Amino acid sequence: MDRSATFSLFVRGLPSRRGFLVSAGLESALDHLAGFRVTSDDVQDFADALGRPPAELRPLLGLAFDGEVRAVPEGRVVFAGEPLLEVTAPLPQAQMVETYLLNQVSHQTALASKAARCVLASAGHPVVDFSLRRTHGPQAGFQAARVGSLVGFAGTSNVAAATRLNLTASGTMAHSYIEVFPGEEDAFRAFARTHHGPVAFLVDTYDTVSGVTTAARVLRELGRPGCAVRLDSGDLGELAGRARAILDEAGLPDVRIIASGGLDEHAIDALVKGKAPIDVYAVGTRVGTSADAPYVDSAYKLVEYDGRPTMKLSSGKVTAPGRKQVFRAPLTTDVIALWDEAPPTGADPLLRTVMREGSRLGPRDDLAAAHERFVDDVAALPASARRIRDPEPLEPTVSRRLAALTGTVRRDLEARLLGGPGHGGTWKRQADPT
Amino acid sequence: MDRSATFSLFVRGLPSRRGFLVSAGLESALDHLAGFRVTSDDVQDFADALGRPPAELRPLLGLAFDGEVRAVPEGRVVFAGEPLLEVTAPLPQAQMVETYLLNQVSHQTALASKAARCVLASAGHPVVDFSLRRTHGPQAGFQAARVGSLVGFAGTSNVAAATRLNLTASGTMAHSYIEVFPGEEDAFRAFARTHHGPVAFLVDTYDTVSGVTTAARVLRELGRPGCAVRLDSGDLGELAGRARAILDEAGLPDVRIIASGGLDEHAIDALVKGKAPIDVYAVGTRVGTSADAPYVDSAYKLVEYDGRPTMKLSSGKVTAPGRKQVFRAPLTTDVIALWDEAPPTGADPLLRTVMREGSRLGPRDDLAAAHERFVDDVAALPASARRIRDPEPLEPTVSRRLAALTGTVRRDLEARLLGGPGHGGTWKRQADPT
Repeated sequence: MDRSATFSLFVRGLPSRRGFLVSAGLESALDHLAGFRVTSDDVQDFADALGRPPAELRPLLGLAFDGEVRAVPEGRVVFAGEPLLEVTAPLPQAQMVETYLLNQVSHQTALASKAARCVLASAGHPVVDFSLRRTHGPQAGFQAARVGSLVGFAGTSNVAAATRLNLTASGTMAHSYIEVFPGEEDAFRAFARTHHGPVAFLVDTYDTVSGVTTAARVLRELGRPGCAVRLDSGDLGELAGRARAILDEAGLPDVRIIASGGLDEHAIDALVKGKAPIDVYAVGTRVGTSADAPYVDSAYKLVEYDGRPTMKLSSGKVTAPGRKQVFRAPLTTDVIALWDEAPPTGADPLLRTVMREGSRLGPRDDLAAAHERFVDDVAALPASARRIRDPEPLEPTVSRRLAALTGTVRRDLEARLLGGPGHGGTWKRQADPT
Repeated sequence: MDRSATFSLFVRGLPSRRGFLVSAGLESALDHLAGFRVTSDDVQDFADALGRPPAELRPLLGLAFDGEVRAVPEGRVVFAGEPLLEVTAPLPQAQMVETYLLNQVSHQTALASKAARCVLASAGHPVVDFSLRRTHGPQAGFQAARVGSLVGFAGTSNVAAATRLNLTASGTMAHSYIEVFPGEEDAFRAFARTHHGPVAFLVDTYDTVSGVTTAARVLRELGRPGCAVRLDSGDLGELAGRARAILDEAGLPDVRIIASGGLDEHAIDALVKGKAPIDVYAVGTRVGTSADAPYVDSAYKLVEYDGRPTMKLSSGKVTAPGRKQVFRAPLTTDVIALWDEAPPTGADPLLRTVMREGSRLGPRDDLAAAHERFVDDVAALPASARRIRDPEPLEPTVSRRLAALTGTVRRDLEARLLGGPGHGGTWKRQADPT
């Protein structure tokens, strides 16, 4: 059964604390598809897993991906039900890549969407990624650094990711560095002796106010531009105020304050709204694991086989049939349509063909270009979708043709397989009910 | 500054829905340490990250890990404040491996602790891992399969992990398989023709009751042992009851029911307590991401440098000084002690020396052995720590010697650095306050 199949990858519903999602993971997905090939080891593994003689699995040997991919580029804002990616290929190929594509797109989209909210909450202050120590493995840490950059983070503590992606590596001394010296002052002076540029002193190892006072003394003597202190515990808003006063009194108005320690978009929002004099926000665990929504409810569903539209009617998991497109126009909600429909006036299609016959159609996408798309899309969002507390996502509508096709396929399935109408749920409201 | 340093890796406090943690990640950590070596590429990367000439970083070239590791073996139950791992090595080595060790131990311990609760909730029914599509990358999916097996999962849908770790590969047909046929009956028959052993039919593509009825008809004709149906949506308890009745009426009392779809320990517990006739629970996203607690509040803290005990006094993040041991005896709470203390009567030490001079002291640990440790430790837990709803973790105490050392180091730091006592918080209550 190797006729052409189209699978559509989409998120059924947004996590409750998200007003939008940021498309991410496409580049990893395309890398996988371009390199996909069933080896003889794979055939042996499949045979072992199924308890079958390898000869029976031999037809899969050498199978590669030579299909087409239409996808939303990374960095674009997307909503529930909108395909992020559609794969059209002979059924075995399209089926075998399901898990990897779902894994990469789900994970990276979840992380990018969380990180985006930190950037919005920071109101223009730099945000940096300190998450590697608590992400779900080092690969996940790499992706956290990458999608952080995609949404505008100013740097990452992940040197490997910074090197590979040409990001700014960012970090400070460790508490252990302070502790190996007899006291903080010795530690700060030693650090400044061996680091000739701007330095950032970690001031909360023993007591933050005492630490800032010591740091101010050393920084005044140094007289270097671009220096900072870092607060990593306690009431960050209050301590930032006290640190700012100490630094200003010492004649150091240009020394910046970096805050870290359990920060997420809610904490940043509260600090910004409380006018805490914090210059840089370093986010870690809660962002690198997207702790309040560590996954999105994604699906990779067959929507067409051998030219015939297909759909599931499973309770709560109804899918819409057919290859799709999403049309976006300023000041209106997105329209999910069939892929060959004409765009509504002034609307642009979100999905572009990015791979044909198993090959990328252009060069690798660029993180900077993805970031620009993100900036443009977020700027166009209503405040209700952007806000940190109780955001309200936009609800795409569906085109008349897609709604009609959904109805036809559903009625056909109900009549043929279930003996009449009345089963399953509904999918989405129609764009134009006339 | 390359004198000997000891760092202690521990979890400050348990997530609110955990009554215990399951130690995991040690094997990955030891692999990393055994292979750790700073290459000339690394030196270049560090120099780039720091904006320094590579010559200044050259002293790090060739740096490898030749220290000692004492650790709690994988599979053991652990609690807040108990070191999972202590590294003793020249400071630069011990410091440079911090992020990787924290990352692996935190992630795998979080996942193992979540998976363990599913096994407890299932009350003896097999649990299988279906999480790969939504874990934080493929590496995280591999670890989810591995720690699932560690706590007693019966299989995994991750064929790569099953092959590498010699686990049982487990799965069913996809919804798309059903959809490419004109109807479910054709799909089931075709599947049975090409799969000669036991088959599991996915019955919820269109309507579960209708799907089970069709599956029963095909299964009765097949007459094969070991077959199953899988429910993947809707009210699983109610549908399992209806499916069981249909199968029993068809004379198929041995056909098992597999349930999946958003399951975690709470959902399994409710189904088991509601006496749903479900034979196998397949868990996915919520377990593979440990969705209600996607991280543990882990730390890797300097506790000794050049023979001198060290500690942090940071607000809310106080650490205890000195190299440690944990003593566990039946029917009492654990005692966190200094590493060279004699064990209390009848108590065993949890930390073992597993690496010396950068080499493992024995062969790689065995997943089956880790599983046995887990089974023994969980059996010894009070019901209050094991229960699914509102579990209560045990609270380790600290030995008199450790409490005395903590007081001495704190008072010394306060006197020398902060001008008197009264700063910082407390760490843990003492085992024996006399």
